Amino acid sequence: MPAPLIHVGPEPEDHLVSAVEDGGGRVVALDEAEGVIWAGGPDFPEFPSGVRWVQLPAAGVESWMDAVQAQPRIQFTSCAGAYATQVAEHALALLLAGVRGIVGYARTKTWDPGGDHVLEGSTVAIVGAGGIGRELIKMLEPHDVEVIAVTRSGRDGTLPVERLGEVWGTADHFVIAAPATDGTRHLVGADELAQMKPHSWIVNIARGALIDADALVEALREERIGGAALDVTEPEPLPDDHPLWNEPRALITPHVANPPETMSRDLAKRVTENVRRFGAGEDLLAPIERDRGY
Amino acid sequence: MPAPLIHVGPEPEDHLVSAVEDGGGRVVALDEAEGVIWAGGPDFPEFPSGVRWVQLPAAGVESWMDAVQAQPRIQFTSCAGAYATQVAEHALALLLAGVRGIVGYARTKTWDPGGDHVLEGSTVAIVGAGGIGRELIKMLEPHDVEVIAVTRSGRDGTLPVERLGEVWGTADHFVIAAPATDGTRHLVGADELAQMKPHSWIVNIARGALIDADALVEALREERIGGAALDVTEPEPLPDDHPLWNEPRALITPHVANPPETMSRDLAKRVTENVRRFGAGEDLLAPIERDRGY
Repeated sequence: MPAPLIHVGPEPEDHLVSAVEDGGGRVVALDEAEGVIWAGGPDFPEFPSGVRWVQLPAAGVESWMDAVQAQPRIQFTSCAGAYATQVAEHALALLLAGVRGIVGYARTKTWDPGGDHVLEGSTVAIVGAGGIGRELIKMLEPHDVEVIAVTRSGRDGTLPVERLGEVWGTADHFVIAAPATDGTRHLVGADELAQMKPHSWIVNIARGALIDADALVEALREERIGGAALDVTEPEPLPDDHPLWNEPRALITPHVANPPETMSRDLAKRVTENVRRFGAGEDLLAPIERDRGY
Repeated sequence: MPAPLIHVGPEPEDHLVSAVEDGGGRVVALDEAEGVIWAGGPDFPEFPSGVRWVQLPAAGVESWMDAVQAQPRIQFTSCAGAYATQVAEHALALLLAGVRGIVGYARTKTWDPGGDHVLEGSTVAIVGAGGIGRELIKMLEPHDVEVIAVTRSGRDGTLPVERLGEVWGTADHFVIAAPATDGTRHLVGADELAQMKPHSWIVNIARGALIDADALVEALREERIGGAALDVTEPEPLPDDHPLWNEPRALITPHVANPPETMSRDLAKRVTENVRRFGAGEDLLAPIERDRGY
């Protein structure tokens, strides 16, 4: 089998060049390429006719979708799942920080025990249980919690998205891990928040647009839920005058679930594996399906 | 087999009376008792000669030891291990809050991503791996971390306490879970802190006395370690003017690893089990050994 001819753009970053070579690829100029590793933003060029495959660097590709739709001849792949362990780890950190009262204690300068909750014995809903959700389920296994995983397909013991309405009044806590599409915008709004319990924490490590921030601020102010721990917001960066910064029941982390250090390592791993598969004619990981939008 | 005769003191709390009965015991006055469930402090009376066993309510019994030594005829048991899942959950929450930057982000009101670390891939030392440590090891299993567990015995793949000195420069993070005895006082002092890495977090869910707080404050001020997340301090409550309250790399939670709600539930479970064992003549859970001090 000849080595697949792969271009690395917009810049020939060393660790991606090595990753391509580790996967058996040969790094070439764009006009010779069969495949492209694109580590830039959505402003990519129209690719030459020899290019059959483009690997994008992000797990959530909603901002790339217009550009992807414009080149229907090409198979695009995302990094969905590539960063899943880091993001799931951060989701668990946020969930525990909320439920165990750490969000409040971190802001206190006096010894004042509260009426604290524990995660053990609770029900955790994972809304959008793809790669991240599956990792989080593994991490929750030793914790004696019940997990309700909601997926598009409803396969493998998960709840199909058509039955999503059942979870808001059932689970104790919620982890939002679904892709951002037209269909998932403001998935959590006033109606969903109204069904949650006074101790419920909601964690968002997906995209800010999945939660109606105005409705969330209202629920937090009125102390109708336990709190919200958000790694993603709408917009990002969250402006300094946004009310979430001053809400005692809110924790904001600035989109750091997938930190730069592990991100480049995990992108390189995904590139190596997809180049290997491309060369061998196997199915690629995380193909983008234009009709579903991710 | 006749029902064992058990006294519940200092007050006949309903949930403990039920717990004794669930274990097959009959609740009696102190002067008829063979066993005592003592849910009070260390100021207990000299027990009548019929009493052969006293169950104490705490997992860490250092403040009871003088009173225990004074009645050498009686077998005392602690609640070591009874609260282990809750405490291990809190230890993991503190560890993740530290390593993932949540301690800092909770105190910030602006979007400012830092150079964040992840737990994945790191080495975690659990110093004093009894019941809590074993639960924490289970909780860390899905996390792709290396665990070094240090125990008195060195059994079951753990490191014996004689080799404790090796861990301070080896592990990335440290969870202190050892009992408080004369031998463990200031187990973590200036020398141990000096060997840790600049990103190391130290978690204490055992007893405040195990860490030299002055040495810790100095290490934090000089940014020589990542930080410290402490559920226990010396003294408790930690006074408002203590420097740890103003240290950006410190997180204090006010001895809430085992919250009141689950504590009474888990104490009741332990009482039921030990009453059953006492009635059946089996070995009791968590016997206190006077010579080791816990």
